Amino acid sequence: MKILLIGAHGTIGSTIDRELSPRHEIVRIGRKSGDFQVDISDSASIRKLFQQTGQFDALICAAGSVTFAPLGQMSEKDFVLGLQNKLMGQVNLLLIGREFANDGASFTFTSGVINREPIRTGSSAALVNAALDGFVKAAAIELPRGLRVNSVSPTVLEEAMDHYAPFFRGFKPVPAAEVALAYAKSVEGLHTGQTYQVG
Amino acid sequence: MKILLIGAHGTIGSTIDRELSPRHEIVRIGRKSGDFQVDISDSASIRKLFQQTGQFDALICAAGSVTFAPLGQMSEKDFVLGLQNKLMGQVNLLLIGREFANDGASFTFTSGVINREPIRTGSSAALVNAALDGFVKAAAIELPRGLRVNSVSPTVLEEAMDHYAPFFRGFKPVPAAEVALAYAKSVEGLHTGQTYQVG
Repeated sequence: MKILLIGAHGTIGSTIDRELSPRHEIVRIGRKSGDFQVDISDSASIRKLFQQTGQFDALICAAGSVTFAPLGQMSEKDFVLGLQNKLMGQVNLLLIGREFANDGASFTFTSGVINREPIRTGSSAALVNAALDGFVKAAAIELPRGLRVNSVSPTVLEEAMDHYAPFFRGFKPVPAAEVALAYAKSVEGLHTGQTYQVG
Repeated sequence: MKILLIGAHGTIGSTIDRELSPRHEIVRIGRKSGDFQVDISDSASIRKLFQQTGQFDALICAAGSVTFAPLGQMSEKDFVLGLQNKLMGQVNLLLIGREFANDGASFTFTSGVINREPIRTGSSAALVNAALDGFVKAAAIELPRGLRVNSVSPTVLEEAMDHYAPFFRGFKPVPAAEVALAYAKSVEGLHTGQTYQVG
């Protein structure tokens, strides 16, 4: 399979790369690194990306930004990043990418644990993660040509605990390599409309 | 309690009114009708509303618009209405309204069944409903002063089947009066961070 991997050089992306590259052709995409670049918050940048990559069999997005801030300090504008980047960025990867997707191609997006187990400063992340899981479930039933879409909802990563431990006290972190398995299940299996909870 | 009821003249809103008005002071709010008017997609309009209503003990929103369209015909712009109106409209009712909320006041928002049981044309609705339920769960744990927030997620209403039956074949509709009970549970109970699924 020809797999577009967005966020290829991130903590999750690089383990997905290690999991899938022995069996598939990986096109590595980043904001500033990789074979191609994309700003997922910009639909023109997404369209340009697909014009460069051409047809594909699977797209994985392991990228997406949201604002983390105490709810007491948040106003409407603090929700914009999450809506434009992590949420609509991934939605647009499907809305635009489907034009370039081969029959039976899959889209695998990344949400996260925070809507299942909320944390301090996580209200935008919870909103966005839940929205992605909801979108995936609904979009799946309307996709033509055997196209599929799933999301992976990982808990905090072992590799991220250096920075994020204070926000995730009591959470059992998972190694990124275990999270990568969920992307393989989505890409190489036949599920659609699923959210894979890891951890 | 002084209860602000947004969408007071809608199918759900009017039954909430009937359920709660025997026991509470209801301030009826609509887009064009009621004691006061608000456009929830406009944060300036929301702020003006609260300046008119003054302090309150409970806010219920039984209003919110999203675009229904076949996924195959949707682009980014078809998600804007849901994001700005039903989703961020209700989020902004909390972000702004908390300044006017008495200690222990509650916010009760309306999501819906479509993220739990997706339907054709429902991808934006599923995204928005899920986002609301996720936001409620996370925002609840950060609210100060005993403030609470819940959402009600009703299935299709008996009263709406005249228009919506073709989209909800096989769904068991519920009477709006039964949905109204969930709002009473939220307002008059002590739960927070909950989504009440009705039907």
